[in-house]
Amino acid sequence: MYYEKVTVVAPATLSNIGAGFDVFGLALNEPYDVIEAQRAARKGVFITSISGADSKRITMDPSRNSAGIAAMEVLKAGGADFGIEISIRKGIRPGSGMGSSGASAAGGAFAANLFLEKPLPAEKLIACAARAEEVTSGGFHADNVAPAILGGFTIITSYDPFEVERIEPPVNLGIVTVMPDVFISTKEARKVLPEKVELKKLVYHVGHASGLVLGMVKGDISLIGRNVMDIVVEPSRAHLIPHLHEVEKAAKEMGASAAFLSGSGPSIAAIFDMQKVNGRAIADAMKKVYETNGIRCDTWVTKPGSGCRRIE
Amino acid sequence: MYYEKVTVVAPATLSNIGAGFDVFGLALNEPYDVIEAQRAARKGVFITSISGADSKRITMDPSRNSAGIAAMEVLKAGGADFGIEISIRKGIRPGSGMGSSGASAAGGAFAANLFLEKPLPAEKLIACAARAEEVTSGGFHADNVAPAILGGFTIITSYDPFEVERIEPPVNLGIVTVMPDVFISTKEARKVLPEKVELKKLVYHVGHASGLVLGMVKGDISLIGRNVMDIVVEPSRAHLIPHLHEVEKAAKEMGASAAFLSGSGPSIAAIFDMQKVNGRAIADAMKKVYETNGIRCDTWVTKPGSGCRRIE
Repeated sequence: MYYEKVTVVAPATLSNIGAGFDVFGLALNEPYDVIEAQRAARKGVFITSISGADSKRITMDPSRNSAGIAAMEVLKAGGADFGIEISIRKGIRPGSGMGSSGASAAGGAFAANLFLEKPLPAEKLIACAARAEEVTSGGFHADNVAPAILGGFTIITSYDPFEVERIEPPVNLGIVTVMPDVFISTKEARKVLPEKVELKKLVYHVGHASGLVLGMVKGDISLIGRNVMDIVVEPSRAHLIPHLHEVEKAAKEMGASAAFLSGSGPSIAAIFDMQKVNGRAIADAMKKVYETNGIRCDTWVTKPGSGCRRIE
Repeated sequence: MYYEKVTVVAPATLSNIGAGFDVFGLALNEPYDVIEAQRAARKGVFITSISGADSKRITMDPSRNSAGIAAMEVLKAGGADFGIEISIRKGIRPGSGMGSSGASAAGGAFAANLFLEKPLPAEKLIACAARAEEVTSGGFHADNVAPAILGGFTIITSYDPFEVERIEPPVNLGIVTVMPDVFISTKEARKVLPEKVELKKLVYHVGHASGLVLGMVKGDISLIGRNVMDIVVEPSRAHLIPHLHEVEKAAKEMGASAAFLSGSGPSIAAIFDMQKVNGRAIADAMKKVYETNGIRCDTWVTKPGSGCRRIE
């Protein structure tokens, strides 16, 4: 197959799910970025346009842009003797906590890979995209780019050597995401994290992370919900997110199995059993907390999604 | 069913498997303790005899003996108007790192439960046995008593509220255990643990614990082996165990998928794929390290086992 031009969809992702800081990630069905890439005769990666959600925040400098860095890493790793021009349509607002930079990085890597004579395997693509995350977010982490590439629920079991596992999420797993009109810098949100944690908190996180993985494999949403617990990362960031606990409480009162701060926020996600609970009602209850307090917000009632895919 | 007298087998268990300190546990097919219990008219629990492996170390005072404490907890919780006399045959040496006190606690709880008109559910039995562990081992932990009661591989997902999950281990999972003639006090071994650990170590443990759980569910021994990793607990105890790293290395050289200090040691366990590797050869290689250094040791080449069961 020989492409001159491709269009790729790159999904939003939830991360920091419960005890899985820097480890767990989940691809969403929506929102998503759309990345167009076109073969160029001159070597290098060139960003020709950025549009969509809050796109003015995003640099067009390919050495500092997530999609640009990731695409360049892929072209280099694949030994390409050509370049690509990239056009980005942001469906995911930067600084949303829904893996905005991760989606663009994954999309850039995935798109560039389509032009290679010998495409890189998925794990290598994830590593290239994670390199972009490191530059733009101030920490090497692959918990957004892994699900953005692979889809479904992913676990970074090891960073060195890099290993990732994928689990197909339960078919009845519903997800609500609420994004208030508040900007959180991932770099800043990493600075408030504790350097050290008590050993008993490690035991707590290992236990609940294990329960969550088991719930995902068994398709047991109640087990997943009981194990979406975090006594390290979310508590240290809670003060950055207005009304976090109220919004989470509102979700649970409407039947959500769990609610949590996604990524470094401000988006708050809730999971629910689609066979038992009305996701729209959960979203409305969460949204109402913000509206009552004069904060605009967007909501999505969605489900786990696939990874990056070519649509044209 | 109305029992006057029962005989119960209570298995040895591995704990601190990889990243699962205080969380993961695995019941072994052997060795095991044998506990006889007989209904008594007077209320209370009475230890009538203790025999077997290094049994002189074990108190017959039922308020300080694992089996006695656990049995009493069960009788109390079940509102018994009678007592029991317990006789203990130790197959598991105390201070071995193979859940010796946990086996006796589980056996005591399980045996006492057989006399109750309304037997307690398994989770309650585990909690009673864990109470005995707290008294005798200096820390409330259920990672030995849970597999000793339930069999197979267990995860304490939560201590408060107490929740435990069980996974049936892969059928081809083989286990070697080597117990050198060295005594380690669980209480002492808990004192050398760090109070706090770096956040990046938490990420490491959560990732590898998740991978191990997934490997257990999928029956993938290579995945399990790659994820039996611990950069917190075992490193802080390694200096207490002579030749630990040499013995682990010897096991891996003979094809073991992983090797680790079980519990607080001194027993060292190795896991292997029974369809591919000779367990006896692994055991011999591990044993040779100790013999070369003039330390006597016992070895078991075994597999995961069931929980406590009545044999008479």
